[in-house]
Amino acid sequence: MSPFTGSTARTPEWQHLRVSVDDGVATVTLARPEKLNALTFGAYADLRDLLAELSRERSVRALVLGGEGRGFCSGGDVDEIIGATLAMDTAQLLDFNRMTGQVVRALRECPFPVVAAVHGVAAGAGAVLALAADFRIADPSARFAFLFTKVGLSGGDMGAAYLLPRVVGLGHATRLLMLGEPVRAPEAERIGLISELTDEGKAQETAAALARRLAEGPALAYAQTKALLTAELDMPLAAAVEMDAATQALLMNGEDYAEFHAAFTAKRSPKWRGR
Amino acid sequence: MSPFTGSTARTPEWQHLRVSVDDGVATVTLARPEKLNALTFGAYADLRDLLAELSRERSVRALVLGGEGRGFCSGGDVDEIIGATLAMDTAQLLDFNRMTGQVVRALRECPFPVVAAVHGVAAGAGAVLALAADFRIADPSARFAFLFTKVGLSGGDMGAAYLLPRVVGLGHATRLLMLGEPVRAPEAERIGLISELTDEGKAQETAAALARRLAEGPALAYAQTKALLTAELDMPLAAAVEMDAATQALLMNGEDYAEFHAAFTAKRSPKWRGR
Amino acid sequence: MSPFTGSTARTPEWQHLRVSVDDGVATVTLARPEKLNALTFGAYADLRDLLAELSRERSVRALVLGGEGRGFCSGGDVDEIIGATLAMDTAQLLDFNRMTGQVVRALRECPFPVVAAVHGVAAGAGAVLALAADFRIADPSARFAFLFTKVGLSGGDMGAAYLLPRVVGLGHATRLLMLGEPVRAPEAERIGLISELTDEGKAQETAAALARRLAEGPALAYAQTKALLTAELDMPLAAAVEMDAATQALLMNGEDYAEFHAAFTAKRSPKWRGR
Repeated sequence: MSPFTGSTARTPEWQHLRVSVDDGVATVTLARPEKLNALTFGAYADLRDLLAELSRERSVRALVLGGEGRGFCSGGDVDEIIGATLAMDTAQLLDFNRMTGQVVRALRECPFPVVAAVHGVAAGAGAVLALAADFRIADPSARFAFLFTKVGLSGGDMGAAYLLPRVVGLGHATRLLMLGEPVRAPEAERIGLISELTDEGKAQETAAALARRLAEGPALAYAQTKALLTAELDMPLAAAVEMDAATQALLMNGEDYAEFHAAFTAKRSPKWRGR
Repeated sequence: MSPFTGSTARTPEWQHLRVSVDDGVATVTLARPEKLNALTFGAYADLRDLLAELSRERSVRALVLGGEGRGFCSGGDVDEIIGATLAMDTAQLLDFNRMTGQVVRALRECPFPVVAAVHGVAAGAGAVLALAADFRIADPSARFAFLFTKVGLSGGDMGAAYLLPRVVGLGHATRLLMLGEPVRAPEAERIGLISELTDEGKAQETAAALARRLAEGPALAYAQTKALLTAELDMPLAAAVEMDAATQALLMNGEDYAEFHAAFTAKRSPKWRGR
Repeated sequence: MSPFTGSTARTPEWQHLRVSVDDGVATVTLARPEKLNALTFGAYADLRDLLAELSRERSVRALVLGGEGRGFCSGGDVDEIIGATLAMDTAQLLDFNRMTGQVVRALRECPFPVVAAVHGVAAGAGAVLALAADFRIADPSARFAFLFTKVGLSGGDMGAAYLLPRVVGLGHATRLLMLGEPVRAPEAERIGLISELTDEGKAQETAAALARRLAEGPALAYAQTKALLTAELDMPLAAAVEMDAATQALLMNGEDYAEFHAAFTAKRSPKWRGR
């Protein structure tokens, strides 16, 4: 637990997500399998608040995001979200869309790597949640679809028009966001949309193993790598080089760097502390 | 026609391009087949002015750009452009190069998707015109060559040094712009330079079908997707997420979003209005 | 030699690198083969100073960077750098990390293309040196590893968190920088990390031939192409288009552009002057 803890109480129970934390690894599961894990207002709000809570608690070193049942996440629920937003006024619509965007920012800015475990459908907001993760571990059943235009909305939802060109290039991103058509696992692998293709049914297990490895490794180094990757997309070269230098100088004062050298000299494996 | 129409007359005839508009789809054809559609000063100027006119008229929802005869476009005409620029003073040279850049900006900033239909050669400025389009539909005869250095000029012409790294990555872009060598269809597909590879001789037909589909679909959603993709290349994450939120809130007040929900509920196809 | 020469003496001998210049091509060899060309403080400093000297002298039009022996470069020396940095204070650590970053900036900003010839291991700082080059010519033995996290440091070292996402996309870059695992030649080619894959043992020879071709070609056009590629990664579209226009207008006043036209008209090959 971080020393920088204020008055806020820890959330006793997340009603719209299944959340467990095990020795530094948080596992977050979208758990409405009967609806292909379609997102509700409550699920977005819980993702936003959970990521903020885990980020300030500093109890977690890696997070796995997966979906129960036949797929990862089919996106915003047609009845509960599309129907409801049609009755909203302008201020409420902006609030809703800012909330979904805050989830993406939280995924990119939280101080631990996020591993999405994708099987079956990852559609609409579900595709963007996976896109905002640091790793996308997918099995051959994975099917991404940025289908926003198919409901009459912009393909740039929740930062997708920012993130996707930086992951797969502007040409592929234009095609995927404009047309909203499904991208199956082989194409996703070919264009760089997934990090690792597993055997059928092995995405969750492989993602959990990666998160475990990240949590047991030099977790501060991983967290800073993520922070730099996120920040340097928005920086010129000279500033990025300076930011790398300051970060590396900081970590060279850290425990894990000294431990690496001691272990190397003693011809043993390092015991990482994440500090 | 837009209500925001001023005093300018509609151009009665484009002398340097073949232009037709059919029910929301503009088809623009480079039509100097005897010169492989080499561009002249007049052709650049017409492209610049046509795109401005179509953008303010709001009569067009998608545009196809193709070339007549054996190829798409061989770039600036050696005699009419290279020869003529050798006699120009500094101010004229800057004017010429700004004009060609304005064509690229117009292609990226016009409020409708642009589909390039590429067969045969797309060289020099022809390659950049295709690069600036939203979709590049190419057949196996397509051959891209950013051959500026081969005439003693910079590979960064008309925004190519900005666009190409964002489409194919900095490594490939450096190689293509520095050396100016041809990229044939299989490599273009592999590195993400083309959106869709068609059968031989089918680029124009496939591009026309895509433009038709875009024009008959939720055209405002497509236009905003394009606008966000263009703008968010130049924005930090936080601003991009905010821009997406505002845009999505706007479109959730639009007709097509309500129509999607009505159609979904009634189990019928949506009738898109592009609003 | 440039007319813009001040009082600084030319370095008579580079003690930590092997350097030769032959008719416009500099060949720089990391030459500690018994240590897989592990970098020392002196080697970094020499790279920084050599690139500055060559940049102001204007005697070089292309540079080849290679490694002697079994590999390209295994990165910072574990004993001489990791050990030594553990004894440094904060100001010294910052100085060291700024120096390594200056090497990367010099590689990106020097007024000539840099061709890395990679065989065997390119690890840690060695991988970043190759990444900062304009071309990576690799043979099948090449193995890149951004292994910073494996020593407890950030994967964002020397600008890697800026450069790698712009070369291979954010997804691959996250995986490579976070996990530090080796990327062998076939994957490096698939994701766009190398420019050209040669036959076994042919990387140096192929890189030298490319550098020779660049030096004998329109070298000012190549230098400006590099400068624009570097600058326009950090610019919005409108500014990039303007920068291209000004650069192209400048080069249209240059000798090589006129020479191209004269040669084309006379049906002979151009004699490039690099001006």
